[in-house]
Amino acid sequence: MSNTIKKIAVFTSGGDSPGMNAAIRSVVRTCAFHNIECVGIYRGYEGMIEGDFKPLTARSVKDIINKGGTFLKSARSKAFMTKEGRKKAYDNLVAEQVDALVVIGGDGSFTGALVFNEEFGFPVMGIPGTIDNDIYGTSHTLGYDTALNTVVDCIDKIRDTASSHNRLFFVEVMGRDAGHIALNVGVGAGAEEILIPEEDLGLDRLLESLRRSKQSGKSSSIVVVAEGDKTGKNVFELKDYVEQNMSEYEVRVSVLGHMQRGGSPSCFDRVLASRMGVTAVESLLEGKSNYMVGLIKDEIALTPLEQAVKGKSEIDQELIRVSDIMTT
Amino acid sequence: MSNTIKKIAVFTSGGDSPGMNAAIRSVVRTCAFHNIECVGIYRGYEGMIEGDFKPLTARSVKDIINKGGTFLKSARSKAFMTKEGRKKAYDNLVAEQVDALVVIGGDGSFTGALVFNEEFGFPVMGIPGTIDNDIYGTSHTLGYDTALNTVVDCIDKIRDTASSHNRLFFVEVMGRDAGHIALNVGVGAGAEEILIPEEDLGLDRLLESLRRSKQSGKSSSIVVVAEGDKTGKNVFELKDYVEQNMSEYEVRVSVLGHMQRGGSPSCFDRVLASRMGVTAVESLLEGKSNYMVGLIKDEIALTPLEQAVKGKSEIDQELIRVSDIMTT
Amino acid sequence: MSNTIKKIAVFTSGGDSPGMNAAIRSVVRTCAFHNIECVGIYRGYEGMIEGDFKPLTARSVKDIINKGGTFLKSARSKAFMTKEGRKKAYDNLVAEQVDALVVIGGDGSFTGALVFNEEFGFPVMGIPGTIDNDIYGTSHTLGYDTALNTVVDCIDKIRDTASSHNRLFFVEVMGRDAGHIALNVGVGAGAEEILIPEEDLGLDRLLESLRRSKQSGKSSSIVVVAEGDKTGKNVFELKDYVEQNMSEYEVRVSVLGHMQRGGSPSCFDRVLASRMGVTAVESLLEGKSNYMVGLIKDEIALTPLEQAVKGKSEIDQELIRVSDIMTT
Amino acid sequence: MSNTIKKIAVFTSGGDSPGMNAAIRSVVRTCAFHNIECVGIYRGYEGMIEGDFKPLTARSVKDIINKGGTFLKSARSKAFMTKEGRKKAYDNLVAEQVDALVVIGGDGSFTGALVFNEEFGFPVMGIPGTIDNDIYGTSHTLGYDTALNTVVDCIDKIRDTASSHNRLFFVEVMGRDAGHIALNVGVGAGAEEILIPEEDLGLDRLLESLRRSKQSGKSSSIVVVAEGDKTGKNVFELKDYVEQNMSEYEVRVSVLGHMQRGGSPSCFDRVLASRMGVTAVESLLEGKSNYMVGLIKDEIALTPLEQAVKGKSEIDQELIRVSDIMTT
Repeated sequence: MSNTIKKIAVFTSGGDSPGMNAAIRSVVRTCAFHNIECVGIYRGYEGMIEGDFKPLTARSVKDIINKGGTFLKSARSKAFMTKEGRKKAYDNLVAEQVDALVVIGGDGSFTGALVFNEEFGFPVMGIPGTIDNDIYGTSHTLGYDTALNTVVDCIDKIRDTASSHNRLFFVEVMGRDAGHIALNVGVGAGAEEILIPEEDLGLDRLLESLRRSKQSGKSSSIVVVAEGDKTGKNVFELKDYVEQNMSEYEVRVSVLGHMQRGGSPSCFDRVLASRMGVTAVESLLEGKSNYMVGLIKDEIALTPLEQAVKGKSEIDQELIRVSDIMTT
Repeated sequence: MSNTIKKIAVFTSGGDSPGMNAAIRSVVRTCAFHNIECVGIYRGYEGMIEGDFKPLTARSVKDIINKGGTFLKSARSKAFMTKEGRKKAYDNLVAEQVDALVVIGGDGSFTGALVFNEEFGFPVMGIPGTIDNDIYGTSHTLGYDTALNTVVDCIDKIRDTASSHNRLFFVEVMGRDAGHIALNVGVGAGAEEILIPEEDLGLDRLLESLRRSKQSGKSSSIVVVAEGDKTGKNVFELKDYVEQNMSEYEVRVSVLGHMQRGGSPSCFDRVLASRMGVTAVESLLEGKSNYMVGLIKDEIALTPLEQAVKGKSEIDQELIRVSDIMTT
Repeated sequence: MSNTIKKIAVFTSGGDSPGMNAAIRSVVRTCAFHNIECVGIYRGYEGMIEGDFKPLTARSVKDIINKGGTFLKSARSKAFMTKEGRKKAYDNLVAEQVDALVVIGGDGSFTGALVFNEEFGFPVMGIPGTIDNDIYGTSHTLGYDTALNTVVDCIDKIRDTASSHNRLFFVEVMGRDAGHIALNVGVGAGAEEILIPEEDLGLDRLLESLRRSKQSGKSSSIVVVAEGDKTGKNVFELKDYVEQNMSEYEVRVSVLGHMQRGGSPSCFDRVLASRMGVTAVESLLEGKSNYMVGLIKDEIALTPLEQAVKGKSEIDQELIRVSDIMTT
Repeated sequence: MSNTIKKIAVFTSGGDSPGMNAAIRSVVRTCAFHNIECVGIYRGYEGMIEGDFKPLTARSVKDIINKGGTFLKSARSKAFMTKEGRKKAYDNLVAEQVDALVVIGGDGSFTGALVFNEEFGFPVMGIPGTIDNDIYGTSHTLGYDTALNTVVDCIDKIRDTASSHNRLFFVEVMGRDAGHIALNVGVGAGAEEILIPEEDLGLDRLLESLRRSKQSGKSSSIVVVAEGDKTGKNVFELKDYVEQNMSEYEVRVSVLGHMQRGGSPSCFDRVLASRMGVTAVESLLEGKSNYMVGLIKDEIALTPLEQAVKGKSEIDQELIRVSDIMTT
């Protein structure tokens, strides 16, 4: 492998997700394996501009594979959106003798990396870390699988109460632009209806579906609503609408919120993070740049960062059909 | 033991809580052990009025000890608040040859039982089932211990995100009249501040406390707020107030909601439910009535239902002090 | 779709695994969706011979998607290995007017189905249900993902003790013929060494690896051993060998055992089960037979049952390499 | 409070248990609250002899309340059993200007503290940390409640498999001298029989009980066996005996092992640890010595260390009776 890269910096950026620590660990250990140096940057681009660096050895990352969040912390950086900010970041990297970057984050983080690469020709590799799974070029982002389990576990708990009281629950889950979480947890938790941004069901069809569900003998129901769903203005409006039109239902709303982002990563996310970290580092050592490491058809694969940013991760139409059949 | 009681009816009433199924199972098996009959009533007082009964044998209640919610379901009953409703319920019980009742629920459910007993002289025993732990005459209500673990687990997850982003979170937990959950999970999850209905901290002291916390080097913070806290109008108002007065903080709100009520009961709740069920049935067989079975100083003890309803479960002042010390 | 199939029977066979209930539910609801009848057979082939059938409607399978095990129960059947046994099973199916079978199980169950199909021309579809993931024609068997999370959670707990005492643990996990669980949980739980049936590391290399680990500054270590590993006679022998040769280590053994098979299925397993059930039923309705429904490169795909039985699921060589790098 | 104590050392000793980190944190923060210094000693008495000390401030113990194990590590120390060893430990403490000790551990650790106090007049306070709950002077040791939940969760998983296959499982749980864990998880997990060191049921009564269970219509059964039970030579012998005498049963054994000791502490254990740490430090500041902090009848109370070591924690006879009734 190439010996022009002697030191790699790794950082996390944007919203945190379970598996980020496992990915950092993998990047660090892969560097150690190939006898190159590794440095961590705190608080993403913000720390890059402030020169908040820390050398990381194989031992620095012990006991973090099972921790949620990111020990390198994450932040949004307005300064990095300015040319001066990026110049300062570049100067810091040069002073620290960093030769390449691994950025773990989402769309926005990758866009920053692309601009940075364009301006300074700095080699970068991306690892998709976000629970929303809304990134093109990978079937699974880091943290997505963990979040699905966290949410399904919550809805199982809500179902206990719903069943005991013959109630209807609207459960809002994360996903501002994408319904992946809602669709999968909806199927996984046996929801009666799933509302996602990709499909506008319409209030009428929702009522109709709830009526059919009631007639079929179901005494309680769960409707999973993605944050970004457009059926109502928001989940509380949906509740009001249903209560006005179906007086037989007592409706409750639960907004699961930030808890969906935390927790110890699932085995899947830990393994995926380990695999992605290896490929990110080794691709840089092979002289590659401007790629995102993803999982495509069950295999690790590279996608140009630009495509990853511009492309759209499609909702699984087959699973929408499965969901419809399951609510029979 | 007395042989005047040959058949006991058991039901759950009010909000469901983990451990209710375990308590039903215990009542049923204790009846079987003493060779008396047991019948379950669906949907609390509502089912009593509608005659929605089901004979339960030792085998009917297998595989439910670990299930959240209540398989007998629960409901609020407006009809039971009327004399006619209660008369109808009484007639159904007589027709079914039921000799005594075990009601699993909270304050409201016990009040109903008291009125019923007064009017018809029907023997009743109460088992406190609610996650709020707001009942006089027991140190622990059924479901309380489970809820504490559920909430602490959620806050641990939120902490992952809070730490990664140096954020302040307001986490609203259940407890309309009582701060037991908030206080205990606040200590258990290492919250920086705990707001409970029993103490009005005031907005100024909250700000002061957050400032001190910031100065002491904490980069992220969790404030646990009981549903019934009066410091602000609600948790969202608190957020606004803090953001206006401490611009250095990015504040997030998480309302944990109904999920706190569900889930598989903890070992503690299962054991407590088993013990309470035995005492409830055996006390009836001994000719007792109008008591609630509780846990007092680690031992099963009876408290007159009337006291249980009128008394007030006090907040643990020592624990408030511990909480203050822990946030040093 | 074909209208020659009017009634489908579903059963579980062999070792149980999380997701079996979700698969039964999916088969039942897909039948309901297509307006055909569905019947469940208790205890696999044994119940088929004894005529232990139960009609299942969409409502019969509510509240089971999140339950471990199989409510139809499972059993090994010696009787089904005889021609007479199979004839009796066939007669029962004909009497019950069953037109096709969906069998959820592993290799042995599929072999039984193949023989049965050969003898009586009975349409059969297989769904791979086993935690071992040792079936050709699918990247994931039902229950595998759940088991990975269960095991990783156990090893995380063992690590708490190992770290606190600077100890070496050998943890035996399931996998008589396949190291998939061991390899993935080994990477996921950060094990120092992973012993699987597919690779004979040899006792000397194990010692060498442990010595290197000690020298690199690790004070505690976890070695994951698949049940079927051949490095030692068994995990206790490994312990003795290491203690004799590395007196600096205090070694402990933990055999995780049957608990690995139980528990509420992960979201992944619930979704996979739902998808597989739909395809199993619809493939039968399309006139197909003798296939196993699997997941190949992230898509549902059919593999001839005979191939599924004869083929070998290969260990992931890339992941073995990742594992080596991670223990740097 | 007394100002003669200006520096307290805290350490963990013996087997680790969940809640030890929370107790360390509480000791450290209570010291900070009272403006006295705190120092941690690594690896118990071993580190005391080697002078392995580390100053701890309020910030040193952040983010550990929810972690299993003990970050100060634990060890057995042969050297501390010698006079020379203890003299060396004393010299180190004096050199470090430590005025008092808080030891978190079990019987053996307390005995060491007593001897040390006798020889050198060094003030000591004990906090009971062990999952076994076998210490006189407290209804709950730290880690016990967490272990109960861990074990019940495991048995719930095993029950999935047991029910699916109509099998009998012997599950061995921790408790070499005490049956507290076995008895409570037995009741909590609905075991058919519970074998504990405190009661010798005898092999015949076990068989009889299993036969009765079978006749009553139970198709699967769980028998919980405490490590220290004397009914058979060990759990595997029990299995053989039952299989020889009840051929209708297929018996499986599961030894849960060390995993029972790990995991994130329950809310109960975190709160208890916080309370105990406060009292331990404040009692020392009040001039007390040679006590163990315990929970008695739901309140924090002190018991002379000598009594704690010599006394015997009794099994709950009422709960044995409840257990018998539950298996009706």
